[in-house]
Amino acid sequence: MAIEKIILGIDPGTTIMGFGIIKVVNKKMHFVQMNELHLRKYEDPYIKLKLIYERTLELIDHHHPDEIAIEAPFYAKNVQSMLKLGRAQGVAMAAGLSRQVPITEYLPKKIKMAITGNGNASKEQVAKMLQGLLGLPSLPKNLDSTDGLAAAVCHFYNEGKIDPGVRYTGWEAFVKQNADKINKK
Amino acid sequence: MAIEKIILGIDPGTTIMGFGIIKVVNKKMHFVQMNELHLRKYEDPYIKLKLIYERTLELIDHHHPDEIAIEAPFYAKNVQSMLKLGRAQGVAMAAGLSRQVPITEYLPKKIKMAITGNGNASKEQVAKMLQGLLGLPSLPKNLDSTDGLAAAVCHFYNEGKIDPGVRYTGWEAFVKQNADKINKK
Repeated sequence: MAIEKIILGIDPGTTIMGFGIIKVVNKKMHFVQMNELHLRKYEDPYIKLKLIYERTLELIDHHHPDEIAIEAPFYAKNVQSMLKLGRAQGVAMAAGLSRQVPITEYLPKKIKMAITGNGNASKEQVAKMLQGLLGLPSLPKNLDSTDGLAAAVCHFYNEGKIDPGVRYTGWEAFVKQNADKINKK
Repeated sequence: MAIEKIILGIDPGTTIMGFGIIKVVNKKMHFVQMNELHLRKYEDPYIKLKLIYERTLELIDHHHPDEIAIEAPFYAKNVQSMLKLGRAQGVAMAAGLSRQVPITEYLPKKIKMAITGNGNASKEQVAKMLQGLLGLPSLPKNLDSTDGLAAAVCHFYNEGKIDPGVRYTGWEAFVKQNADKINKK
């Protein structure tokens, strides 16, 4: 059966980046991979950003996802954390943008809702649901990778019913739709 | 006289990105270019990020700066603005990181102080000082490009006296200094 689509889900944090990949075959999801990148050990914030950027590029170049789903909280405990989070999201997005892969962002609540039916579900509940949905033999010790995977699964469920005001389909789609608006000068 | 160094200064905002380039010859600064990228007309936030990322890459690939100085406020009116600002900084940084150009960030106050001696100087005062320092025949109508140029000039003044806790010298420098800490697995 031919692969219809590959979705890369990312949860780009400043201490851990979780990511998961699913493929869609015959309109059904299949698990491909999940993992996490630990950034706490690096003190230099640029190294953290560089690693997020490079890992995202590697994932794109290796798996050729058709779409990227990013878990993107719209709040944090303070403006400092928000700035750091924005930078982490920014470098992950730059990787997607540089490879022309459409990016869709989802609020954490929306991801939990899509997977468990409860926007306030715990990480464990989300992970258990993913295990059942994707037939995973076991769950990782640390549940940050399941957060990335959850974003990919949420994107699969939301396809075709995404508010166009929330979903951004990337540069190429934009150019096709708005050729008259593009002016790089 | 050989060019000793090229410095690219960037002020990455979510509505305007200002940038300026100086070259250092015989320990003196010379103006190369300044300009601004207007982003307000694009509604899609990804298009804005893509344009910041691409313009920064273009500037690097065309001018081959040895260093990048970024004006980086550490506050904004609310967490939403901070997230957007972080993303804008993140994509500009991703461009620098992808080309191995060391990045240094400066607070707006620090830039104003370095150029005018007053951390609360107005945009106009900074621009006037830059005009004198670099012998610019005229100033642009809009002063966002001078903000980018100011970051580059601030970096020139601060070389050699930068707190190593604030200055990050990029991936390659880090690798050389911390080869044992690098683990990409």
